[in-house]
Amino acid sequence: MSHSNYSQPDPKLDLVLERIVDVPRELVWKAWTAPEHIKKWFAPAPFTTPDCEIDLRPGGIFRVVMRSPEGQEFPVDGCYLEVVENERLVWTDALNPGYRPSKKPFFTAVITLEPHEKGTKYTATAIHKDETDRQKHEEMGFHGGWSICLDQLIAVAKKM
Amino acid sequence: MSHSNYSQPDPKLDLVLERIVDVPRELVWKAWTAPEHIKKWFAPAPFTTPDCEIDLRPGGIFRVVMRSPEGQEFPVDGCYLEVVENERLVWTDALNPGYRPSKKPFFTAVITLEPHEKGTKYTATAIHKDETDRQKHEEMGFHGGWSICLDQLIAVAKKM
Repeated sequence: MSHSNYSQPDPKLDLVLERIVDVPRELVWKAWTAPEHIKKWFAPAPFTTPDCEIDLRPGGIFRVVMRSPEGQEFPVDGCYLEVVENERLVWTDALNPGYRPSKKPFFTAVITLEPHEKGTKYTATAIHKDETDRQKHEEMGFHGGWSICLDQLIAVAKKM
Repeated sequence: MSHSNYSQPDPKLDLVLERIVDVPRELVWKAWTAPEHIKKWFAPAPFTTPDCEIDLRPGGIFRVVMRSPEGQEFPVDGCYLEVVENERLVWTDALNPGYRPSKKPFFTAVITLEPHEKGTKYTATAIHKDETDRQKHEEMGFHGGWSICLDQLIAVAKKM
């Protein structure tokens, strides 16, 4: 199957984090696709990630639970859409496993990993249905939060 | 990529149309995947299908407009999730092209085609987020409507 080329972000609707990271993309991929790694970096400290379930194929579950220092839990319930090893990972919370429409659709995440002389060009795009949701995600701290989590991911990858 | 095996329908949430049809699955596939064919069978007569747009790959557009005899239009705006030629077609209106969460999520459709001595075992499954949506789809005439459309599809396939 060939895949979508609709991944040009729309600045009104989407949020993008793009960084060059000094680890090879194979390790970034590993950090993104195994529960034991995800639990170490997915939530910005002092939040934690006590639970993660992964079935790494289109239609398979991607479930993560983040927990605040006060104990409040923030689950992400989604499913994978595209799984192209070391290159491209797409998941959404608009669908649950088996592509069942979800009760709390909010965004689709596209993670792309490109080879770079210093390691990897890492691009994370969050795709929303409208400007309201994009703005809400921005106010939730998308840029700072995802950037902190990427630092945590890099630290995890360097210990592999 | 391997694909989802979450396709066991849940009778509380899903609707299933299963029939043996006397045309080879390659023709059923063609009828489902080209706008010029879709326009001839997608809406139950006397409804028509004046418009259809297809980009046959995961993340690609699947858009159909149905029109009532009175001229009222009923659009389906969705995107493909899985495209396995002659075997399995999955699309949803919970996502728009590029996997953007949609404003009117309602169901995911899974069409499976299996070889059968009389032609093709055809299974169409509509997957909903809850019982309310399943019931609404049932009351909209899922079983009768999709069955009439399948008759129309067979007639189209036989003229290919």
